Amino acid sequence: MTNETTEARVLDAIRERRDLVNAAIDEELPIGHPERLYEASRYILDAGGKRLRPTVTTLAAEAVTGTDPMGADFREFDALDGEPVDIMRAAVSIEVIQSFTLIHDDIMDEDDLRRGVPAVHEQYDTSTAILAGDTLYSKAFEIMTETGSDPTNGLEAMRLLASTCTQICEGQALDVAFESRDDILPEEYLEMVELKTAVLYGAAAATPAVLLGADDEVSDALYQYGIDSGRAFQIQDDVLDLTVPSVELGKQRGSDLVEGKETLITLHARQQGVDVDGLVDAETPAEVTEAEVDDAVAALEASGSISYARETASELTARSKEHLEALPEGGSRSLLEDLADYLITRGY
Amino acid sequence: MTNETTEARVLDAIRERRDLVNAAIDEELPIGHPERLYEASRYILDAGGKRLRPTVTTLAAEAVTGTDPMGADFREFDALDGEPVDIMRAAVSIEVIQSFTLIHDDIMDEDDLRRGVPAVHEQYDTSTAILAGDTLYSKAFEIMTETGSDPTNGLEAMRLLASTCTQICEGQALDVAFESRDDILPEEYLEMVELKTAVLYGAAAATPAVLLGADDEVSDALYQYGIDSGRAFQIQDDVLDLTVPSVELGKQRGSDLVEGKETLITLHARQQGVDVDGLVDAETPAEVTEAEVDDAVAALEASGSISYARETASELTARSKEHLEALPEGGSRSLLEDLADYLITRGY
Repeated sequence: MTNETTEARVLDAIRERRDLVNAAIDEELPIGHPERLYEASRYILDAGGKRLRPTVTTLAAEAVTGTDPMGADFREFDALDGEPVDIMRAAVSIEVIQSFTLIHDDIMDEDDLRRGVPAVHEQYDTSTAILAGDTLYSKAFEIMTETGSDPTNGLEAMRLLASTCTQICEGQALDVAFESRDDILPEEYLEMVELKTAVLYGAAAATPAVLLGADDEVSDALYQYGIDSGRAFQIQDDVLDLTVPSVELGKQRGSDLVEGKETLITLHARQQGVDVDGLVDAETPAEVTEAEVDDAVAALEASGSISYARETASELTARSKEHLEALPEGGSRSLLEDLADYLITRGY
Repeated sequence: MTNETTEARVLDAIRERRDLVNAAIDEELPIGHPERLYEASRYILDAGGKRLRPTVTTLAAEAVTGTDPMGADFREFDALDGEPVDIMRAAVSIEVIQSFTLIHDDIMDEDDLRRGVPAVHEQYDTSTAILAGDTLYSKAFEIMTETGSDPTNGLEAMRLLASTCTQICEGQALDVAFESRDDILPEEYLEMVELKTAVLYGAAAATPAVLLGADDEVSDALYQYGIDSGRAFQIQDDVLDLTVPSVELGKQRGSDLVEGKETLITLHARQQGVDVDGLVDAETPAEVTEAEVDDAVAALEASGSISYARETASELTARSKEHLEALPEGGSRSLLEDLADYLITRGY
């Protein structure tokens, strides 16, 4: 992102859509019976979040059909064959999957804070957190069956959603396994990031194309856009974990480092001979001091590792935008490009 | 079930199908990457199980279409519109969901043994068990998209699978909540059983009808057959937990009682004035003695509570068989009737 006007435009697009998405979440995920289960399922969704993936989904729907940004009601979005499709349901479904993975990941990673509030397993208990995640999982699939699309396209979207979830599990399993290894190759890390994070961006971008009946070329291009910008997003997340004040991050800064999570930053630093495991002494995010994190960040800056991560994210973002050339030009395609930039320039 | 010949016929039907189902599980759930995740996902599936739900699914497919028992290759089963449908994939999908729920339930219930082997969270660890369950969850949805059915029917089957999973989560949440309550009404218990156990039998029975394009009347009847026989199945499970030797049960006999799980048996006993909470002193299944369980069972027999559970199961089974009258007569419908009987006469 090169100027403030572009950033302001992206933030506006995110904000406008976020309000619609939040209203749709209320509608699609009412508090059912048993109440405690549904409250726990909604807890992280209600704690905030920028709704980046739903923003991608709604923008992609517009870009595929050549609709003006926010010119359509996403609830009855005109498909290419003329039949209305509820694109907002697809967007909610993707966001609900994201929320399920956060809840289960926080249990596995023993992360106690999320979006500035206690993680579900802390606010409730581990059993409730497991079940809340499981409930969101099936709800996401239920919601995705209800877009009103042509059934062939609907079934294809379900297939994409299901295989995406499988890949997310594979990615999280790799992430967990990496914690007990110190010989991870950068390619392995990038594979993990693709599975754990990028495929859901891929699904967020490609699903509207599938539901609306776009050509395979278009849905493939959007998928690749999501993959590359999703990878860049995760690398930026790793940078932010080290550089953004804890209060803005919603959790302790430097958590990844304390928990021994490998990132592109630590892998690069190891290659430069930095003693990554000795960077912080604290064993839990609760114990680490800001000064300790400051020193670690200084060392990672000195080795060029943080710059390296930023450059890699930047290259991926450039690539992600190239994929969009398969789409008709217009305001929404241009916002998708700007959004890709925003994913790596955002400060939190 | 009134005679040994009938029982032998049901057991034969289960056994023949089980071998086909196990081969299909091997094919649909190969050990992928990362290996440890997939091995953990397969662990309980490979530890045994009678494959009762896939038996229901394949029998229902035959009953709907009037095919002879085992007269068709379930991989290319003739739908009512003539197009082949892979009914075996539907059967595997349902069994995979069942296995996911076992893995997550065992974490929540702190059950350390399952099918005579350590639970996944014991054999591996809790994170791996959460992820193994999550992987099976999405794999079940992936597999269900691949039956080759008419897309409208396929999407309807996905909807049924998703809403069934939501209900299973609701049921498990109620079950967990019941552990800290002592004022549960029998109606509440039956609602919990319907959600936690019976709906998956309902889906197992109705899904082939949906995929094969049967009338709503037929799929509804099969669903109700599954609901009633599934409820009876769970009540029988509660009886077996008290009456079958631990070695055959694959876990400690009396576990439910020790863990304070309410069942129709304990609810009836409370109404008869039995001090249910005082029946066993042990606080974990590992601590309880066989003598303690024997005494508890004697008390529950004296209060008529075990008989009451058996009678309730028997009434539900009779009702489940009545629903089948909506189906064409034939060998498979008759086997479905016998199977319903088997679910409440089985010894383990």
